[in-house]
Amino acid sequence: MELLKQRILEEGRTVGDEILKVDSFLNHQIDANLFREMGHEFRKRFPSEKITKILTIEASGIAVATVAALEFQVPVVFAKKTQSRNLDKSIYTSKVHSFTKGITYDVMVSKRYLSKNDHVLILDDFLANGKAVEGLLDIIKQAGASVEGIGIVIEKGFQIGGKMLREKGYHVESLAIIDRFIDGKIRFME
Amino acid sequence: MELLKQRILEEGRTVGDEILKVDSFLNHQIDANLFREMGHEFRKRFPSEKITKILTIEASGIAVATVAALEFQVPVVFAKKTQSRNLDKSIYTSKVHSFTKGITYDVMVSKRYLSKNDHVLILDDFLANGKAVEGLLDIIKQAGASVEGIGIVIEKGFQIGGKMLREKGYHVESLAIIDRFIDGKIRFME
Repeated sequence: MELLKQRILEEGRTVGDEILKVDSFLNHQIDANLFREMGHEFRKRFPSEKITKILTIEASGIAVATVAALEFQVPVVFAKKTQSRNLDKSIYTSKVHSFTKGITYDVMVSKRYLSKNDHVLILDDFLANGKAVEGLLDIIKQAGASVEGIGIVIEKGFQIGGKMLREKGYHVESLAIIDRFIDGKIRFME
Repeated sequence: MELLKQRILEEGRTVGDEILKVDSFLNHQIDANLFREMGHEFRKRFPSEKITKILTIEASGIAVATVAALEFQVPVVFAKKTQSRNLDKSIYTSKVHSFTKGITYDVMVSKRYLSKNDHVLILDDFLANGKAVEGLLDIIKQAGASVEGIGIVIEKGFQIGGKMLREKGYHVESLAIIDRFIDGKIRFME
């Protein structure tokens, strides 16, 4: 998606060989108009009428998923990362390791909002090692629901997540795939 | 906002005298169309052209703020609750106590995304004791920015937050204000 790639080139900041900061428009400050364009693009790439639900994970994924839901016209469910007193006790859970934060956390989805009748599109902001998506896939499996696809805003093509998920047969669409950083400059895959 | 009140009456579940669960459409599962209507309503209630930024707090506030930003046509900044390696070191911070979760946490906003030139609208999903909003107000003060208003989806009118903020002179608009629960039934303030 050219508009997104332009923004990444203009505003993205690289740290070392692996970290890309895009917090000016994606995951700290949010450009809602860009998110609307991303929502259009996800709908184009996942045109299936079978999709009944969008599943994402807090926090940054929530904005991506909710604006996209205006296109898909299905509910969003976001997996929660910490046990809150207000969360339903009847939950699906999975463990996710975050390399970015250096911690392992539980993700949870209430059984009320995901069932075997659901056809789920997973949306998230970043795909690197694929651990967050694996946690969501585990939850979908526990619910007995179907996976219709996995939509990602920025995929780090030099990390294992995208390759692993595609090899397992999932339909993965990333709006921008980063090949690598060369001297701090961002190179995209074609 | 009648549409919202209807949904609260139809789907809200009360626990004891203080807890209202609206996770079927607001803070676990999300109805994006309802959020769009809420965005319209916030814009009507805060018509000022001076607003330059919407400030919210992860996680549930993000969806409210981002969809509303499509109306306001300004960037959203969401305060982060945990220190992540990817977050800029140059940050404003404040401490917030969550009665719901029984913990005190730090909220952080990068100095890049809030400055003395900003006119900020705070948006959040719930207002109870007002601790989260106080944390955001503290951050806005540190930035030297101006507060244009505080927009809330559901205010618990029987808790202190709304009263306290209005007495301090802030323009607070809540789309639904709950008076109290009577035998588990939800009563709104007029």
